[in-house]
Amino acid sequence: MLRAEKTEAIRAAVFEELAAVGYARMSIEGIARRAGVGKTAVYRRWSSKLHLVLDLVSALAVQGLPTPDTGSLEGDLRQLYELTARALRHPVASQILPDLQAEAARNADMAEALQNALRAGQHSVASGIVRAAAARGELSADLDEDLALDLISGPLYWRAVVMRGKPPKGYLARLARATTAGLRTL
Amino acid sequence: MLRAEKTEAIRAAVFEELAAVGYARMSIEGIARRAGVGKTAVYRRWSSKLHLVLDLVSALAVQGLPTPDTGSLEGDLRQLYELTARALRHPVASQILPDLQAEAARNADMAEALQNALRAGQHSVASGIVRAAAARGELSADLDEDLALDLISGPLYWRAVVMRGKPPKGYLARLARATTAGLRTL
Repeated sequence: MLRAEKTEAIRAAVFEELAAVGYARMSIEGIARRAGVGKTAVYRRWSSKLHLVLDLVSALAVQGLPTPDTGSLEGDLRQLYELTARALRHPVASQILPDLQAEAARNADMAEALQNALRAGQHSVASGIVRAAAARGELSADLDEDLALDLISGPLYWRAVVMRGKPPKGYLARLARATTAGLRTL
Repeated sequence: MLRAEKTEAIRAAVFEELAAVGYARMSIEGIARRAGVGKTAVYRRWSSKLHLVLDLVSALAVQGLPTPDTGSLEGDLRQLYELTARALRHPVASQILPDLQAEAARNADMAEALQNALRAGQHSVASGIVRAAAARGELSADLDEDLALDLISGPLYWRAVVMRGKPPKGYLARLARATTAGLRTL
């Protein structure tokens, strides 16, 4: 394998190991075995499994989600929820995210990296939607933006990741309407 | 130690071990050491660490939260949020809950136990609030109750557990007002 191929094989192996055994049980040995490389090939690139995972999480966040632009707050939220619901069905979100959050509860570096990744991803899209709505006069220009983002991101995360339930038909449209009404009170 | 004292010492040790090292890294050996008992004393009571933790989670859920009864939906939500914000500052919630959720992502027994615990705890209180509001005519009697519970529970969980942020002054009151408006659209 070329050097760049090895790097890609290691990255892919990390996601597979994370999904299969979780962060706490994951080892550099297991990653190297799955990637078909030696342990030193991993250590040459990343000094620890924490650094490895932080690097991948940061890279994922930068890809981000496209920002909806339907011309209305409710329409934008509806589109964001459809994108998010799809993203949350991916193993990275449904298995790895809870895993990294568990690690974040006892590791400040992981907590910071994860919050930065969420801010760069989900939050930057939600924040774009809120600011566009404020510019159109649909929302107050001086609302509490952190609370707005909690109202936007919380319910679908609770349903999909915490309760591990599949949103039923019509759910995302009703959620977008309810959230729009909530945001208008801010 | 008497038999009942040993059981209590083991229960306490499990919470301490969970908070300190997490579910994945926790061992029966570590629990026994912390409790000051032999390994067989643990195995005599619970067949595995999964059963041990499931038993404790179920016991916690039954304790539950008191159901608010302020006479208005917004007042009830405000009180629920104050109780929940306090509960989420406890290590059981802020460290152990993300941990068990990570385990739930790859263990169906854990997922079921955790969802039952959340339903018996947080959701039963929220559901009581929604039903009382419907009985007073503040909410539609045939609303989508699952969506209502997601709107009620999601935002504060996102803020406190996912983003690990402390709600600022006035936040819980604004959240209760916004959520009330959202629920009224259902």
